[in-house]
Amino acid sequence: MSPQVKEILEAATDLVGYKTYINLIGHLADGKRVHESDNRVEAERAYQALELAAEGKYVVVVSSGDPGIYAMAAAVFEVLEQYHQPEWQTIDIQVAPGISAMQAAAARIGAPLGHDFCVISLSDILKPWEIIAQRITAAAISDFVIAFYNPVSKERTWQLAAAKKILMEHRKPHTPVVLGRNLGRKGEEVKVITLEELEPALADMRTVIIIGSSHTRQIQQDNHIWVYTSRRYNSEE
Amino acid sequence: MSPQVKEILEAATDLVGYKTYINLIGHLADGKRVHESDNRVEAERAYQALELAAEGKYVVVVSSGDPGIYAMAAAVFEVLEQYHQPEWQTIDIQVAPGISAMQAAAARIGAPLGHDFCVISLSDILKPWEIIAQRITAAAISDFVIAFYNPVSKERTWQLAAAKKILMEHRKPHTPVVLGRNLGRKGEEVKVITLEELEPALADMRTVIIIGSSHTRQIQQDNHIWVYTSRRYNSEE
Repeated sequence: MSPQVKEILEAATDLVGYKTYINLIGHLADGKRVHESDNRVEAERAYQALELAAEGKYVVVVSSGDPGIYAMAAAVFEVLEQYHQPEWQTIDIQVAPGISAMQAAAARIGAPLGHDFCVISLSDILKPWEIIAQRITAAAISDFVIAFYNPVSKERTWQLAAAKKILMEHRKPHTPVVLGRNLGRKGEEVKVITLEELEPALADMRTVIIIGSSHTRQIQQDNHIWVYTSRRYNSEE
Repeated sequence: MSPQVKEILEAATDLVGYKTYINLIGHLADGKRVHESDNRVEAERAYQALELAAEGKYVVVVSSGDPGIYAMAAAVFEVLEQYHQPEWQTIDIQVAPGISAMQAAAARIGAPLGHDFCVISLSDILKPWEIIAQRITAAAISDFVIAFYNPVSKERTWQLAAAKKILMEHRKPHTPVVLGRNLGRKGEEVKVITLEELEPALADMRTVIIIGSSHTRQIQQDNHIWVYTSRRYNSEE
């Protein structure tokens, strides 16, 4: 949590968010009105936050990672635009950036995002699978490192298998793959497998997956495994 | 600066880095041995840091933004692998993530990175332009939001014009483009233009440029301009 976010939380009167994330705040939530919600009701949550802010409350929409990357910031602006309420026009909105899951996973394992990369959500709830498949194909052909968010959920498991199938057509089977889970929280876990070992059972909704490019290397230092993406093309490889 | 980075800087005995970044640390550098260097000597800097660490120093390689995204972390692992010094094997290496320039710019202007995006360096010092052009084309066709790092430098100006030419073939001329400079520092500047207005004179080495997708929208709230990327496809647009 950045010092900026801590200050914002201290000043807040109302917290809006998914309960799991609000619980992570700990004692900083003391004395605030807490408006918990379930996951997957982003638009309702954003609406509620804007209404409370228009009433004069200092509202924080709580997100994990970076609110600007697959999180609540876009949902707030979507709702702001959609309803266009006159009383929302003077709300002072601020987005406080954070460390996204891919960055936390990357830092734990080395520097796999050290060169050009793409970030793709595998959730086809809000966009058709054809668009996702086309993006994975384009990213794979162009040798981008790829970070997958929302790789699987209880109801959604075939998408990751389909993504792997596309990747296997363009990347070597031993390409390093990083799986990160619960980054920066209790139960944090980061492991390295190969592309051919990737399967839906290894991931859940909270896993971020980083697929190496042809320039992503796994190296050993003492008994530590590091994964990084070289910045150099035209090298001696 | 995250609390983790502050703790690391407090514990350090030696700071290695580009002088502009070391100057940003301010009084936290007091009492440390400072090994300043010029920009563009990443490998030498990484080598020096590993040598000092092997001597038992607590060395911090200072980077701005996220060291894992176009910054020093990959350079350190490159050098670690290349020289493979026995005395480097037991160095305790740690990467501390941070807020990258694209995230700081995105947060200031709304949520342009709210959905699938690619990150591409326009510098052709370490990789051939053909690879860069191919990545821009793939990202443009697949409707990714695109963040450009190192868009221009004193010696390199045609690359951004060439990138724009490719983008204009696939994106509408009024696509929102965000230019961010000196994020989180004195002289911070974030502005929104359209793709057709983009030109090399508007950027320098410290500028990050975010090119919207077909789902990136510019909205007005009171007299404030926001840019965000909608998470929804199949919407009423």
